[in-house]
Parts: sequence; C-alpha cells; structure tokens
Amino acid sequence: MELLGQLTVTGSLTDEEFDRRFQEISSYGDDHLICVIEDESSGKIAATGSVVIEKKFLRSCGKVGHIEDVVVDSEFRGKHLGKRVVEFLTDHSREMGCYKVILDCSVEKKVFYEKCGMLNRGIQMSKYFD
Amino acid sequence: MELLGQLTVTGSLTDEEFDRRFQEISSYGDDHLICVIEDESSGKIAATGSVVIEKKFLRSCGKVGHIEDVVVDSEFRGKHLGKRVVEFLTDHSREMGCYKVILDCSVEKKVFYEKCGMLNRGIQMSKYFD
Repeated sequence: MELLGQLTVTGSLTDEEFDRRFQEISSYGDDHLICVIEDESSGKIAATGSVVIEKKFLRSCGKVGHIEDVVVDSEFRGKHLGKRVVEFLTDHSREMGCYKVILDCSVEKKVFYEKCGMLNRGIQMSKYFD
Repeated sequence: MELLGQLTVTGSLTDEEFDRRFQEISSYGDDHLICVIEDESSGKIAATGSVVIEKKFLRSCGKVGHIEDVVVDSEFRGKHLGKRVVEFLTDHSREMGCYKVILDCSVEKKVFYEKCGMLNRGIQMSKYFD
C-alpha cells in the first residue's frame, strides 16, 4: 500500500478490508494477477503491477489483458524493474490466450512503454465520481 | 456479433463457443455487464456496450469501471443511442461503488465522449500478439 501511494491516492484501509479485497481478487485466479518484486535484503516491495484479463465475444471470443497500477519504489528506480513487471504481465496475458495487452498512462510515460514493445494507439477518457 | 463486426474483427464463432463465453461472462454477475438496445419493431440489436468492474487496493479498495466495445448499428445512428449506452454503463459503475469510469478510444471519438461527461486524461498503449 505504501508503494501504491507513490502512484496515486491509496486512502485508509483496515486489515479486514484488505483481507476481503485480497480474497475477492484471489477468487479470479489467473484472470486477475498482481506481480510484486521484493528486495530480498530489506524485505521491501520494490515494484508492483497488475493485470486483469477481460473476456470478449469479438475476435472469436478473444481476451484482452488490461495492465494497471505499475509502480516502482523511488528507492529502486533505474534498475529496469518497471520493464520487468510489464514484461511479466505481458507474458502472462499472452499465455492466457489474449490477442493484445493494453494500458493507460500519461504522455510522459509513452517512451518507457515503447521500450516495453507497446505502441500508442488511442486516448483515454475518464469520468470521476468523487 | 454482426453489430460488433461494425466495430472490429469478430472472427468465426460456433454456438458452443458463444455459449461457453456467455456462461463465463455471466458468472461475474454485476462485475461484467453487457448493455444491449434492441429495436422493438425489427428485433435488431441497435446498440451495445459493456463494462468490466476492476477491484483495486488503492483508493481504499476502490473499484474502476472499464467501458468496452461501444457500438451503434449504422442504421440507427443519430438517435443518441451511443450516449444512452455510455450513460447506462456509467450509472452502473457508480452504483457498483466505482470511483471512476474509464475507456479508450480513437482521437475522433473524443468529442462524443466529452458530451458523455468524460475528459481526456491520458493515452492508451497497446501490444498485439497476433
């Protein structure tokens, strides 16, 4: 949660709420995977990212991997950990039979994701409720 | 499937494959909803769109609605059906407790989604496997 706080607002969370959400996500099995890279010496989580597998009817019942919440701890940047997280989630999506993997990011991150073999193919639109 | 073909490649699909995917999507309940607008007089599907609810840890175990595959049959365009589909999927996401709803589209669709109350907040990156 501390690491996710380097990406966006994490908000408050009780252990019970965390456990419940953990169980919910776990119940999706390989359809919702969270990748974590741990620094063995300090036990700190150095990088994380997740992927949600969406099942469609189009493309002969194709699947799409949605990569979300990729972040590397400021202490561990410059070690290509972000690239390793994205590659892991991309490989998982391919193994799950997805025809593509997609993600949304800021324009500043475009060059990083191009290095991960991705191309800019559209824009993201969003509406916040709060 | 015919309508989805106006959006992208649908590919071939047996009835069995369709049924299996239908069951898979149905098993997610309110977490994966497909909205369909039917023209009562002809029985034709005039518009469709879907939303996948993603469960996160950040934002106090927040949820995000991912809107996908919005398309209006060429025969029924100009009747604001696309806006109704997006509004329905947005309302569903809000009711499910999402803090935001997002989607990816081409730059040409930006004005349409702005009319649906959305703002451009980033870019989409993707990698195709086939």
